[in-house]
Formats: sequence, C-alpha cells, structure tokens
Amino acid sequence: MAAWSERLAGVRGVLLDISGVLLDGGKDGGVPIPGSVEALARLKRSQLKVRFCTNESQVSRKDLVGLLRHMGFDISEGEVTSPAPAACLVLKERGLRPHLLVSDGVRSEFHRIDTSKPNCVVIADAGESFSYQNVNKAFQVLMELENPVLISLGKGRYYKQTSGLMLDVGAYMKALEYACGIEAQVVGKPAPEFFQSALREMGLEAHEAIMIGDDIVGDVGGAQSCGMRAVQVRTGKFRPSDEHHPEVKADGYVDNLAEAVDLLLQHTHK
Amino acid sequence: MAAWSERLAGVRGVLLDISGVLLDGGKDGGVPIPGSVEALARLKRSQLKVRFCTNESQVSRKDLVGLLRHMGFDISEGEVTSPAPAACLVLKERGLRPHLLVSDGVRSEFHRIDTSKPNCVVIADAGESFSYQNVNKAFQVLMELENPVLISLGKGRYYKQTSGLMLDVGAYMKALEYACGIEAQVVGKPAPEFFQSALREMGLEAHEAIMIGDDIVGDVGGAQSCGMRAVQVRTGKFRPSDEHHPEVKADGYVDNLAEAVDLLLQHTHK
Repeated sequence: MAAWSERLAGVRGVLLDISGVLLDGGKDGGVPIPGSVEALARLKRSQLKVRFCTNESQVSRKDLVGLLRHMGFDISEGEVTSPAPAACLVLKERGLRPHLLVSDGVRSEFHRIDTSKPNCVVIADAGESFSYQNVNKAFQVLMELENPVLISLGKGRYYKQTSGLMLDVGAYMKALEYACGIEAQVVGKPAPEFFQSALREMGLEAHEAIMIGDDIVGDVGGAQSCGMRAVQVRTGKFRPSDEHHPEVKADGYVDNLAEAVDLLLQHTHK
Repeated sequence: MAAWSERLAGVRGVLLDISGVLLDGGKDGGVPIPGSVEALARLKRSQLKVRFCTNESQVSRKDLVGLLRHMGFDISEGEVTSPAPAACLVLKERGLRPHLLVSDGVRSEFHRIDTSKPNCVVIADAGESFSYQNVNKAFQVLMELENPVLISLGKGRYYKQTSGLMLDVGAYMKALEYACGIEAQVVGKPAPEFFQSALREMGLEAHEAIMIGDDIVGDVGGAQSCGMRAVQVRTGKFRPSDEHHPEVKADGYVDNLAEAVDLLLQHTHK
C-alpha cells in the first residue's frame, strides 16, 4: 500500500462517522472512545474542514449533539448530516405521509410532517420499539397500499454498544422487504445522495474529502462509491475480518480516531 | 387449462395445509373456515389417503391437534407433518445444541434437546415473542459462533389471522440472515425434504399426491418442485395477485377446501 503521504494528498476535508468513532453507545448514552474528544479538538484546530455524517436515527440530531457536547466533543447541530432531516425533505418533495416505525427519541424530527392517512412507511433504528406489534403494524400498513413505499434511515446490519452488538435498522428493513415483496429506499449512508449532500454542505468535491468510519460497507464502501477516500477505524463495530472484506478495501486502517487525526495532520497540506 | 378429470388423474393422496385451509388463526385459536370441517370429514371417508403438512411452529403439534379436534376436525397427531419434530431430528443427527427463538407454546417440542452452550439458533414463528430483546439475543448468539448455523422452521412471509395479516417467521429469518451475513437452513415447507418425509409417511410417490394450500410459494411452488401437483385455495392468505404469480402456477385454484374436496371426490378414481 502507498505511503500515507500519498494516500492523503489533496485532502481538504474530513467526514466523521459518530457511533463507533467518537463514542460507543450504551446506557445513559454510552462512553467516548478513548482519545476521541481530544483528537476531534485537534482536528478542528487544523485547516481541514470537518463535518459529521451519521446514520444515527434513534435520537434526534439535537439530542445527539447535546449528548456529545456533554461528553466534551466540539460539535454543533449545523455540522451534522443525519438521515431524519434528509428523510423529511424527501417526504415533503414527494407528498408522502409516513407511518413512523421509529423510536420515541427521534419522533420530534417529524413534527412538521403530515402523518394522517399514511401512504408510506418510514423505518429508523427503533431499538426496543421494534416489538412484534410495532413491526407488524408497519407491515400491515404497507400491505394495504397499492404501491407500498418503504423508506429506511440507513441500512446498517448492527452497531456496537458497551453491552454488545445490537441489531440495526437494516435487519428490520430486510424483514419488511421480504414480507411485502418490495425494496426499500435508503436515506442515509451508503446512499450516494446522502454523502453528496454532506459534501455540498462542506463545499468540497468528493476527491477532496475523506470519510472516517467503523463500518466497512456503510461508511468505507459508501464513501468510496462516491469518489471519496475512506479510512476504517478499529473501534466500534470493527471486526478483524473487515480488513479482508471480499468487496471493500479501505484506503487505510487505523486503530482509532486519534491515529487517523495524527496521520491527517502530519500528511495533509497545512 | 385441462379439465379437472385430467388434472386430478392418478391422485391417490392429499396433503393438506392447516392454517388458511382448515382454519383462520386468531384469538382463542381462531375459527374454522366455513365448510372445512365437513369437507375434511368427507375426504377422510373416501379412499384417498390424507395427511396434514403444516409450517405451524407457534404451538406444539399436540396443542394444534387438540385445538383442531375441539373445532370438530377429524385429525390426530400421527397424521401431521410439522417442522418442530423434523428440526429435532436434524439437531440430533448433527449434534447441534440450539438457542431457541421460539414461542413458549412450542418449547415443549424441544424438551429432549440439549440447549446448553448453544452452537446454533433455531427460529420459529414466535409472534409476540419476537421482541427486540429476543431477536437481538439470537443475533448475538450467532455472531459469537465461528460457524453460525441458523435453522428456520419454515420461511413464510406472513399468515392471515382473523384480525389481519401477521408477519411470519421468514421475515425474522431474513433479518438475522442479513445482520449476520449468513443463509438459514429451512426445515418445513418449501424444503423438499419436508414434503418428501410427508410423502414417505403416506406411502406415496410424488406423482400420486396433491397438495392443497393457501400459500402460492410455500405450498404450491414447494410441492410442485417435488413433483407433486398442487391446488391453491382462495382462503387464508390468498390474494388475487397469486393467480398471476410470476414464477408459480398452481394446477388449479378453488374457492375453498370444500370445493377442492368436491373436485377430488368427483374426479379421482373411486
């Protein structure tokens, strides 16, 4: 593999995943990954542009940012690209009225959306709210529609909490796809539109940006498909087999965000 | 389409699906489908061999038969091919110790199976027991295995209860397959081994038997793949679009079991 100086040449901005890079989720919001608070602070003092690109859909962007700030991270709402606001744009553009299969924590993101007489289903990472009754209700809504539309906020397989691996929205998206014989539309990583909107908000071209994430498919593969570079951290849901993934090869693997920031500050143009 | 006399020529035995053919499930066990108690009685008085072939996996075979007898159906345990007993054979043969993602109602079927230190997961139609916590636990067990084995009792998309359509085990099987990156092994319809074991128990060759079911894929397609004939009833989960299914064409469509029995008694050799 080429030297880091070559791999990072021309990088002007960094897209950061949140869960598994900044923190491990869990009880009371989880814990920061060691070194990540300080690493983010250093990154933000550099001339590199920084933006956060998350599939977090169990809490609102506001609550997520509040939690991160409480942990000491330098982050504000305006710096975060997250799927619920993106989904609201799609719903409005297409005149869709969703039945929401989401956690209570993210429901406030949809407070301006008409949810009467649903003509689609929006599914997010609902955690404990993925009861049989709730998932079945979403299924029944879809089966009653002539043209069932399922919008999924990300399609992650699982994420890591301090207590262990946890099923993510993608598993339940697949359950509904199979039961209804349909294909969901994904809003969030790895959908190209989602990365592109984050790039637009940074004012950068894809070749000028690098994604740092713990998900070899959603973060690394998704960003690379858009023409960005991408590095995988060995934190969060990282598993050793990711370094030999049959389809996706990261531009580099680092132990954690702190190492990624070291390399970025060392090898990108000051 | 050929006349029924031609389509039914040489039929010596009938395999009957239960849910959606004999009864619609629901509160307190559901209700018989009109005419089906009497139709079964007539069928059993004929010279045709009769066997039941069900993917029911939410209650034990014993309880299922008790419920049906209470409704007036002429049925005994020995006449029923169901997936839980078949799965127990597979588990024993392969030395597998399952973590059970099943309803309490079917747990008794596994009472002779060693479930300590699980090295596989068995998933059945668990209904309300498909809580996030229970599904996630099964996911975690699979992710901790070096060679994760998932055995699914059927792979139905949904079934019909008196209260509406209900997600079946297949949806949750797909969720686990996707989350773990594995493929489940299905015990039950439409697995050929399952139909073949029902045929063996009837002492018939595939070309001598006909399947009657409400599931165009699991019942009709599955039976046809084994060389049997198959008729779909317009009860249970039947939907008009089934008659134009892109891949499966039944040997005939009938309004209900009563019509199927009329035709069988009229056109098969007395």
